[in-house]
Amino acid sequence: MKDLPLAKVYQLLEPGPVVLLATASKGHDNLMAMSWHMMVEFEPPLIACIVSNGDYSFAALKATKECVIALPALELASKVVEIGNCSGREVDKFKRFGLTPVPAARVKPKLVAECFANLECRVVDTHLVNKFNLFVLEVLKAWSDPAQKNPKTIHHCGFGSFAVDGKRIKLKSRMP
Amino acid sequence: MKDLPLAKVYQLLEPGPVVLLATASKGHDNLMAMSWHMMVEFEPPLIACIVSNGDYSFAALKATKECVIALPALELASKVVEIGNCSGREVDKFKRFGLTPVPAARVKPKLVAECFANLECRVVDTHLVNKFNLFVLEVLKAWSDPAQKNPKTIHHCGFGSFAVDGKRIKLKSRMP
Repeated sequence: MKDLPLAKVYQLLEPGPVVLLATASKGHDNLMAMSWHMMVEFEPPLIACIVSNGDYSFAALKATKECVIALPALELASKVVEIGNCSGREVDKFKRFGLTPVPAARVKPKLVAECFANLECRVVDTHLVNKFNLFVLEVLKAWSDPAQKNPKTIHHCGFGSFAVDGKRIKLKSRMP
Repeated sequence: MKDLPLAKVYQLLEPGPVVLLATASKGHDNLMAMSWHMMVEFEPPLIACIVSNGDYSFAALKATKECVIALPALELASKVVEIGNCSGREVDKFKRFGLTPVPAARVKPKLVAECFANLECRVVDTHLVNKFNLFVLEVLKAWSDPAQKNPKTIHHCGFGSFAVDGKRIKLKSRMP
């Protein structure tokens, strides 16, 4: 995996892909599928996300204030859904779904080797955690897999229906 | 336009499309393009979004606590980019881009007739506005245009590059 400049992180999350959220608590590495996230700032990249307090990952994220956001391409779609269908309370998801945990540089949760990008994050704001389960994260370090060219992401439309990235269009925007 | 059940709103925003944000302040209807938004709760639907304090819409949203989120399909992509390229300080965007403002039921900002869905929203939390420009909205009323079947949304990937919705896949998810 290769360094990804922090200034480019927003280009990964702004299009709204389903991602995996990796946490680690008491020696237990876990994964969940997540669609409720958004960019908050370009650089340093800030991300907001919702992790339900019913999810096993919630306690780990709240306690350790660290996570990895991993971006799966279309090829991993069925594993992503299966990850969302079970709980870390019962399942070692890395093992069950044959995903490879890779030590991160700045945080304890693991990178997911099969994902085309991985973002090492720490929680920087918890004001809205109790009210909305809303965490604000800062990306400390970002990685991309140069072997995965033009990965197609998936976008959840409810009940297991996903829109897959289609064609790219280019328009004259003044915006980053 | 037809009533859209509030319980279905998340299916529109969870996939991460570019949307238009309509505000109204001192008799001035305005529009901006927005990609930094996420779902916060299913029902009543809550949405978080970032509106930069440099944007003309910021003051209107902060003062009136009302907006409309309008969802444009691919056909409107070039107008969406043009809307993002100019400011409401100088331009009447509805007029300039030939979009039709339609009175909303519960809020003063206008619906956009050409969009395939419109969400009438009020601001319900401002704790993170000063720190992150982050607003939490509640959707009070939602509309869909039954004439627009299977609209394809666009997802911003930076500098005017957009991923258009491609094929749909269906996997066995236990998640809504």
